[in-house]
Amino acid sequence: MGISRDKIRWNGWGWAAHKDGVGAREDVWRWLAGELGMPSLLVTPARGMDEITLAAPRLERRDCEKFVAMLGADQMRDDTYERAFHALGRSYHDLLRLRAGDLASAPDAVLYPSGTDEVLAVLAYASERNIAVVPYGGGTSVVGGVSANAGPFGAVVALDLSRMDRLIDVDSLSRTATAEAGIYGPALEKALQARNATLGHYPQSFEFSTLGGWIAHRGAGQQSLRYGKAEDWLISAKLATPRGLLITPDIPASAAGPNLRDLVVGSEGVFGVIAEATVRIQPVPEAAEFRGYLFRDFTSGTAAIRRAMQEDLGTAMLRLSDAEETRFFRAYGAAGKSGGLKSRLESAYLRWRKFADEACLMIAGFEGSMGAVAQSRARFEQIARALGALSLGSNPGARWRAGRFHGPYLRDPMMDRGLGVDTLETAASWSRLDALYAAVRSALETAIAATVPRPGARGIVMCHISHSYADGASLYFTCIFPRALDGEIAQWKKIKAAASEAIVAQGATISHHHGVGEDHLPWITQEKGELGIEVLRAIKGTLDPKGILNPGKLIPPQMPA
Amino acid sequence: MGISRDKIRWNGWGWAAHKDGVGAREDVWRWLAGELGMPSLLVTPARGMDEITLAAPRLERRDCEKFVAMLGADQMRDDTYERAFHALGRSYHDLLRLRAGDLASAPDAVLYPSGTDEVLAVLAYASERNIAVVPYGGGTSVVGGVSANAGPFGAVVALDLSRMDRLIDVDSLSRTATAEAGIYGPALEKALQARNATLGHYPQSFEFSTLGGWIAHRGAGQQSLRYGKAEDWLISAKLATPRGLLITPDIPASAAGPNLRDLVVGSEGVFGVIAEATVRIQPVPEAAEFRGYLFRDFTSGTAAIRRAMQEDLGTAMLRLSDAEETRFFRAYGAAGKSGGLKSRLESAYLRWRKFADEACLMIAGFEGSMGAVAQSRARFEQIARALGALSLGSNPGARWRAGRFHGPYLRDPMMDRGLGVDTLETAASWSRLDALYAAVRSALETAIAATVPRPGARGIVMCHISHSYADGASLYFTCIFPRALDGEIAQWKKIKAAASEAIVAQGATISHHHGVGEDHLPWITQEKGELGIEVLRAIKGTLDPKGILNPGKLIPPQMPA
Repeated sequence: MGISRDKIRWNGWGWAAHKDGVGAREDVWRWLAGELGMPSLLVTPARGMDEITLAAPRLERRDCEKFVAMLGADQMRDDTYERAFHALGRSYHDLLRLRAGDLASAPDAVLYPSGTDEVLAVLAYASERNIAVVPYGGGTSVVGGVSANAGPFGAVVALDLSRMDRLIDVDSLSRTATAEAGIYGPALEKALQARNATLGHYPQSFEFSTLGGWIAHRGAGQQSLRYGKAEDWLISAKLATPRGLLITPDIPASAAGPNLRDLVVGSEGVFGVIAEATVRIQPVPEAAEFRGYLFRDFTSGTAAIRRAMQEDLGTAMLRLSDAEETRFFRAYGAAGKSGGLKSRLESAYLRWRKFADEACLMIAGFEGSMGAVAQSRARFEQIARALGALSLGSNPGARWRAGRFHGPYLRDPMMDRGLGVDTLETAASWSRLDALYAAVRSALETAIAATVPRPGARGIVMCHISHSYADGASLYFTCIFPRALDGEIAQWKKIKAAASEAIVAQGATISHHHGVGEDHLPWITQEKGELGIEVLRAIKGTLDPKGILNPGKLIPPQMPA
Repeated sequence: MGISRDKIRWNGWGWAAHKDGVGAREDVWRWLAGELGMPSLLVTPARGMDEITLAAPRLERRDCEKFVAMLGADQMRDDTYERAFHALGRSYHDLLRLRAGDLASAPDAVLYPSGTDEVLAVLAYASERNIAVVPYGGGTSVVGGVSANAGPFGAVVALDLSRMDRLIDVDSLSRTATAEAGIYGPALEKALQARNATLGHYPQSFEFSTLGGWIAHRGAGQQSLRYGKAEDWLISAKLATPRGLLITPDIPASAAGPNLRDLVVGSEGVFGVIAEATVRIQPVPEAAEFRGYLFRDFTSGTAAIRRAMQEDLGTAMLRLSDAEETRFFRAYGAAGKSGGLKSRLESAYLRWRKFADEACLMIAGFEGSMGAVAQSRARFEQIARALGALSLGSNPGARWRAGRFHGPYLRDPMMDRGLGVDTLETAASWSRLDALYAAVRSALETAIAATVPRPGARGIVMCHISHSYADGASLYFTCIFPRALDGEIAQWKKIKAAASEAIVAQGATISHHHGVGEDHLPWITQEKGELGIEVLRAIKGTLDPKGILNPGKLIPPQMPA
């Protein structure tokens, strides 16, 4: 197994042993209370495991015996920790429930198969016996992708792939690698880098997410400009279904009809369980540089990204924070510190250069050969300077890299202080991006203002562009707001709905790299069309005729005629 | 309408008015007879239109009246020329039948809709009335993709999209364009280039094929290294089906489940009629250079391509002929000419440089800014020289460009002289490419040797690599052989089957950019798997419940249980 489950928090983010440096920093909380228009921030701790009662497991004894016979004695578990750990993903919505001790969606058992044949056996049996199966990789879904719902069935098992973590083959000539899908990010990269290769897929969840999970939700890593999204680097897959294996061919390109690989990527466990995958790899880059640039506003920063993408400069990452995100993280870093000489000099310099409150920080990443890195950096600096940006050197890049996986750890201490923290993301063509940005920001601000627990309180809405293309880009919003403690789930639903309505009204996608899960289900039909949803239903009906796989995700239930 | 149908050959390639310079060149035919081990080449002309009798159209009068009411008086045609023109595509197998006057698959009528709504109306009506509909773009399929089969239905209409040829919108900021799918290559490029934009998709069929056709069969243009295949440049599409419009969203990337655009590209008219498409465009490149290189053998040429692709050099085209193709076209160019001093000097120089019979010609294309072209050319020359190649300068590139669309015109005069000419293509990862090359070449040579009309006769089997990727490449085979005039279709079937069996046995794709159509149907299940084929059937069942669309293509018929 990749990581022993008791080493990971069951109701929060990351390592159980992680010590956050923020919880006890009353100076930070005072500053943040002020930012949010609150007199103070209450202490709102999560319930402990000992305060939780789970419903009795609903699996019949013969089913338990059968699973044990298939997988081995220790590979079917139904203790409270395992069931709680696999109950939900790690979205804000999930954490609200986990922290409140609401484990209605705990699976009746957790199964740990050791290989593709065992997955096939479990699926065939579960289908025959009408037991729902929720495929589970790292469990870091932030869209309700792994909630262990039984749907219309009497029982549900979580199928945890983490024992399926072998690197099966590296084809150095073709630059591809084949691995079992349950392998975690660090284990995969360690095995590949031992052979001077990399997949280069580093999502913020990297430490706790798996190859199969990345494929299932069409994930994007932080250097997606160089390495691509899952749909770009996936070459072929083995999908285990209740009806057997669907194997897509390992070919570079084809005109033999639609490539069924494109149905596996983004299938979110509803068509089958991604058991193995062959992916594009690259040599570990000779050089990697991450540098900071300060743009005068979001518009000029966006223009720089668009130009770089359309010139195909070969940058690895262009991450542009909007003015609010730039301001927030600068102030967060300074909170509680007496403004030192360095900070005051910096501010004076920026004022002198006529950088106002609209200034936006960009972290630009360059990877490849020394020569290629130097060349694309030089060209990007030309573009940035021509648009009035200031080069900040390599310190902001180094800081970003050092903290690249730390962001999600901030959420738990914030939730311990009566705050809500949610993120959402979308994408649109360049010509629609400005309107999309304005509409989603406005929807979030309005919905937060309407649901804060006291007059005068407000939220912080921040945004960055982190994944771009020749034809458009993604927008990633983060919002922090005072929680309505007497109706926190209803508050979240209102905010989520407002943002989602704004997104679909702009013709943008409901998700660029998080997926659909349960949370985006109400809007997926607007994006795909009724006929498109029927197509997805027909595919599911073929591969999973009983509908046991991951009930309630991706595909809306059929309305009665 | 894009091109008046009577200006295009109904039983051969290209412009009816095209004069080939080869037919009367007895010196060429004598040389070719020698190459093929034949004493001489018989004159075997095609039947004329006046020698052909078509079955009476089977559409009921009320159906004709209805179509006329929908489309307008002149937009339903059932004269002999229109029906013969739309009977089949332009594969060798098709031409054998067209030239023999076998028009069993002539449609009962040809419909010319003027827009998406008319297409929808035709499909809804045809579905209600059980009339088969064969979507028709340029009709240049070489895999039996447009044979007007009625399938299980009593009548069949060809739905000719050529009146749907508007460029609807150009989004310069996002670098996308939206057009009706019936637009021909030259009209699309003319309209785009008037706005300094290009799609850059130049298949050999460019003059006679359409945007919708390219998408339907996942086509590749000659500069696919720069512009991508259809599945790369297609952003979104409107697919008209008997159940209404399937519209995929116009977004740069998404995690909202599988992108249904990936089911439209390669759908070959069996899921619906591609009515409109939004595609990625680029500025017309500032510079374009095409240059020749001579490699010592196919292996070193292949290595140069692999290195260029894996270094992401930004070449637009790397087209490597194998030794046989290199030798054949050199000899073809020289046939009948007394070997001049220049030619003899060239040969002597090559011998002195120790280039033997294994020498392979590559045409390398570079497009982009002046600087980018110079840079990628310089780096490619380094790679080529390090592998022992000789730079031939720009003449071979200019010759290739001048004749880039002329290849298919050679087939008609060859068929007039008792010869068979067929092409097929496949793709595989780099680590499988050598074995694939050897297996397909051997299968073709053996099958041709077993089916030539007289002892001692032989075929010519040539191959080139024209589309490459970081993980692999395509192989494009051309074979020329003496036709078995008393059983030419049986001969073709044996040759085709032998090559196809070799391809699937190697785990390669049955087609890289021609499609499946009727001709590859016997091997598609081996590539997709039984379960994969069931998925395709389920999609079709949803969009085209009666199965009226393009019967007999892409998806094998369901076996009785």
